[in-house]
Amino acid sequence: MVDDFIFGTLATEQLRLERVYGLRAGISHAFRRFPRDPLPAHAIQLVLSAGPEFPVRRGWVYWTSDGSDPQGNFGHALNGFAAPLLFTHTEWDNVLWGYISYYEAVLPRFPAGTVVRYCFGLEVSGKGEVLSDHGRVFACYVDDDPLPDWTRDAIVYEVFVDRFSPAKGENWKKPKTPGGFFGGTLRGITDHLDYLADLGVNTLWLTPIFQSPSHHGYDATDFFEVEARLGSKDDLRDLLTEAHHRGIRVLLDFVPNHVSNLHPYFQSAISDPQSPYREWFTFHHYPDDYETFFGVKSLPQLNLRYPPAREYVLNAARYWLEFGVDGFRVDYAIGPAADFWADFRKVTRQVKPDCWTFGEIVDPSDVQLTFTGQLDGALDFILLEGLRQSLAFGRWDGHKLASFLERHQAYFPADFSRPSFLDNHDMNRFLWAAGNDQRRLKLAALLQFSLSGPPVIYYGTEVGLSQKRDVRQDGRGVPEESRLPMLWGKQQNTQLLNYYRKLIEVRKNFQAFSKGKFKVLDCNDWLVVLERQYEQETLAVVINLSSTSQNYSLPGQWFIQVQTDQNCERVLQDRITHLALPALGGVILSKTR
Amino acid sequence: MVDDFIFGTLATEQLRLERVYGLRAGISHAFRRFPRDPLPAHAIQLVLSAGPEFPVRRGWVYWTSDGSDPQGNFGHALNGFAAPLLFTHTEWDNVLWGYISYYEAVLPRFPAGTVVRYCFGLEVSGKGEVLSDHGRVFACYVDDDPLPDWTRDAIVYEVFVDRFSPAKGENWKKPKTPGGFFGGTLRGITDHLDYLADLGVNTLWLTPIFQSPSHHGYDATDFFEVEARLGSKDDLRDLLTEAHHRGIRVLLDFVPNHVSNLHPYFQSAISDPQSPYREWFTFHHYPDDYETFFGVKSLPQLNLRYPPAREYVLNAARYWLEFGVDGFRVDYAIGPAADFWADFRKVTRQVKPDCWTFGEIVDPSDVQLTFTGQLDGALDFILLEGLRQSLAFGRWDGHKLASFLERHQAYFPADFSRPSFLDNHDMNRFLWAAGNDQRRLKLAALLQFSLSGPPVIYYGTEVGLSQKRDVRQDGRGVPEESRLPMLWGKQQNTQLLNYYRKLIEVRKNFQAFSKGKFKVLDCNDWLVVLERQYEQETLAVVINLSSTSQNYSLPGQWFIQVQTDQNCERVLQDRITHLALPALGGVILSKTR
Repeated sequence: MVDDFIFGTLATEQLRLERVYGLRAGISHAFRRFPRDPLPAHAIQLVLSAGPEFPVRRGWVYWTSDGSDPQGNFGHALNGFAAPLLFTHTEWDNVLWGYISYYEAVLPRFPAGTVVRYCFGLEVSGKGEVLSDHGRVFACYVDDDPLPDWTRDAIVYEVFVDRFSPAKGENWKKPKTPGGFFGGTLRGITDHLDYLADLGVNTLWLTPIFQSPSHHGYDATDFFEVEARLGSKDDLRDLLTEAHHRGIRVLLDFVPNHVSNLHPYFQSAISDPQSPYREWFTFHHYPDDYETFFGVKSLPQLNLRYPPAREYVLNAARYWLEFGVDGFRVDYAIGPAADFWADFRKVTRQVKPDCWTFGEIVDPSDVQLTFTGQLDGALDFILLEGLRQSLAFGRWDGHKLASFLERHQAYFPADFSRPSFLDNHDMNRFLWAAGNDQRRLKLAALLQFSLSGPPVIYYGTEVGLSQKRDVRQDGRGVPEESRLPMLWGKQQNTQLLNYYRKLIEVRKNFQAFSKGKFKVLDCNDWLVVLERQYEQETLAVVINLSSTSQNYSLPGQWFIQVQTDQNCERVLQDRITHLALPALGGVILSKTR
Repeated sequence: MVDDFIFGTLATEQLRLERVYGLRAGISHAFRRFPRDPLPAHAIQLVLSAGPEFPVRRGWVYWTSDGSDPQGNFGHALNGFAAPLLFTHTEWDNVLWGYISYYEAVLPRFPAGTVVRYCFGLEVSGKGEVLSDHGRVFACYVDDDPLPDWTRDAIVYEVFVDRFSPAKGENWKKPKTPGGFFGGTLRGITDHLDYLADLGVNTLWLTPIFQSPSHHGYDATDFFEVEARLGSKDDLRDLLTEAHHRGIRVLLDFVPNHVSNLHPYFQSAISDPQSPYREWFTFHHYPDDYETFFGVKSLPQLNLRYPPAREYVLNAARYWLEFGVDGFRVDYAIGPAADFWADFRKVTRQVKPDCWTFGEIVDPSDVQLTFTGQLDGALDFILLEGLRQSLAFGRWDGHKLASFLERHQAYFPADFSRPSFLDNHDMNRFLWAAGNDQRRLKLAALLQFSLSGPPVIYYGTEVGLSQKRDVRQDGRGVPEESRLPMLWGKQQNTQLLNYYRKLIEVRKNFQAFSKGKFKVLDCNDWLVVLERQYEQETLAVVINLSSTSQNYSLPGQWFIQVQTDQNCERVLQDRITHLALPALGGVILSKTR
């Protein structure tokens, strides 16, 4: 089913079983912290389990509240504090064929602004003291800072900077390969802010703009400089000023996990054994075998457990927020050490209390939820899969889609930010995946905009930008096909653009989309009927998944707010609203005009 | 690891995964009832889950409190009552790659003596109303009847009746095959009650004695008659009288799941399509394809969902308790319909409030626990595996054994009866599995008698009865090798017999064995040191798993109560007790003389 190749590390049942049973078999905290995001009033409960092959005799949590690393030895704190783990119960596991033991520790309350670092040492019979989770240090940031309210109403537009637009008077370059430079710049974005404001988006996410040798920028050589091809710091300042002037916030794409191998610190680290930067990376065998992003040698991983490396990255986050950006889309958030995010949270919240940070976490919902209190939320990859399976590929019926949406919505707390998207620069564009059937795109967008997560539009989607072939067919392992230059002027599909404009307008008109209760009103093989309700607002969303027209009637008097197709019909009769939806058509209705 | 072939239906990882994910993927209550054994003061919480492929829209629990079957239709009770299920939360499952939804219902309090039957109907989108758990009806018996106290102090002796002893003056028969009749009888048991009393056992479990064509009797042709080969009802009455006179209670082996195909009711069912007994069995295709015990055509399964069949079996239980027996070992307890056990509990408790019933439940601890409040407990198959792996086969080190014992003990509530055993009539005898190394048997028995479960001795174990070959080598699928005739007179190993006598005597002297707290004091590669503590009693158990002698010192002054070997040495010095244990030797120590 995961034939989009989105969930690589969990693509097969075998990989999934290994994940599940790896955690159960080992000595694992695995982020079981309650509450996940402690307030100053909260004592913090930590849960740990040990599989059948780990005969634990005693255990301790070691913790600090001053940012330093906790250390201990058989319950004696060498740095920070130690508290014993208490055995709570055992659970029989039929697959491991043995008992899993559970332990618990409770940390005290901490004042707001505290980063609490903690790890676990367990005396394993016959093996001495063993650290849990393969030595991972965990952390949380104690605060009282709810999700910034503006983020709930965000309508995000992802700009792939090199592919969006050259500055006024400049033309697209003609690179020899799809991975070359097309010449989009920051000025090109500023020049089109009126276009974006007119579309209605209120938040931009720029793909990486730091100094970098590549067109995509996910391999920075300096975290404090703007890549010259894209513009200058002044250009960025102008962009921010002009965007803010139009009520548009700007998020940068932030990549804390790795750098380019051309980054001077990495170059220093591999050329000089005495380099102060050697500790910034993890060498299995110096200098040629080092930790990377998924084995890509040109992307060495930063060792964020090493304080100077951590500070470099945190300072960059601080610098750009002070510069004026409004938050970060955080690349590959499961990459950095688990304790990094508490520091990141502290820095970002202290510099800009209402900034927005959300992660790219390709792992499913359970892993995403472990970032609660570290980032504001995560790009909603599981929703992405549901939207593509049901509306691009037509593989889910109405029952399955409705049930999925209901359970997915119930899974997450309301203050976990879940930006929704149909595609991005790492996968086939939705429109292409849907066989370039615009009805499917419009229906998917209708649903996307009806759900509580702030919607993200990948540049060009709103004007029909598609691609020529599968991203996996170009053999380069980089999905250039979904990064073609933006369409401008007469290339744009204005009918689609108007549809998107309308969707955004309607979403802005009703708070029920972002804040309302979610309910599946009805479903059948072909139809899904949802209700969103907030204060005086009641909305209904009716979606026809089938390739034939469908009739549906709702009690009461409803008014169409958006329709995917002009042929959606609505007749009021005896206080019943009768709908006739064409194939792959849908409407958003309201109880008030 | 399960090379004893004890856990057949869960022998491979594949089977275990299917079990785990079958439950998670389906619509399952799976006995999640809290409390498991409700008192009259308790409201009853019922939990149900639905896997990703079951888009549940609504659900109901249907229940009765008059013994009849609950029935309902979309929340409308047709018999009994209906209550809606409330959605509680969802859980992401990485293996199923989807959300599991959880629901809950709460039943009211019921007066003592009530059998509550319940089942669940769920409206599954597109499929109408679906019953949970493949249509299973669940039940519980509301009572206030704790585990009879005498059962905690029981020391059980399993008598395989045909193989224990002919009556005085009779000789063993010489059957042509190992599955023939050796001529053991009830009188033969009565004649040896003094032997058993002298050994110290206070409870007998007789393998089935109802009318049956086989030597083992697990295929009855009449639940109300004693098999003539074994004796008469008068013989049984005498046995009960004489046993009770000696303070020995008697349990029958009760087989509610199936009958012999020669049972007249089954014969009627298959020979007459109009037979009133046809409904007593489950015919997939009449008359030759019917439900059986593990596909054995000679063992048709009773349809205990059919009230007349259920009454027949319940009446038999009532009859024999009224006759004077003290309880039942219940064969293949996972076979009968899930709701049968509440009725069984009601009948057995009402007829004889202090009777003892425990199940043969080969499934692991989690399934055993689902019988809480239905039976008093279950034969401890998981402990059996641990004792055989560590002490017969020598495959577990001290760390693993100690950790297993600790977790296993923690898993079960104290009032769940767990008779412990080293072997039985369905597997290789422990002594043979241990290469006839008596040290291993004595060490295993030492540990068995140190744990809280009432120990069961399989006849002959106490005098060195072994076997000639593996039970799986005789090709008949029936483990005759472990059912060889009892040894009497000079055949008996009196040294071993005295050891068992001593073990029993010591267990009777200290309540800490059956009621005390359990603690692993220490362990290493070769040693396990346990503590049992109750009121003023403190005991220590020290076991040497290695094939060389080991020294061990305990602080304080300890006295040897039992030792597996005369060469176990103990020296007191400066308030420290120094032990020298020979290879595979062990001791039970007490703080008082």
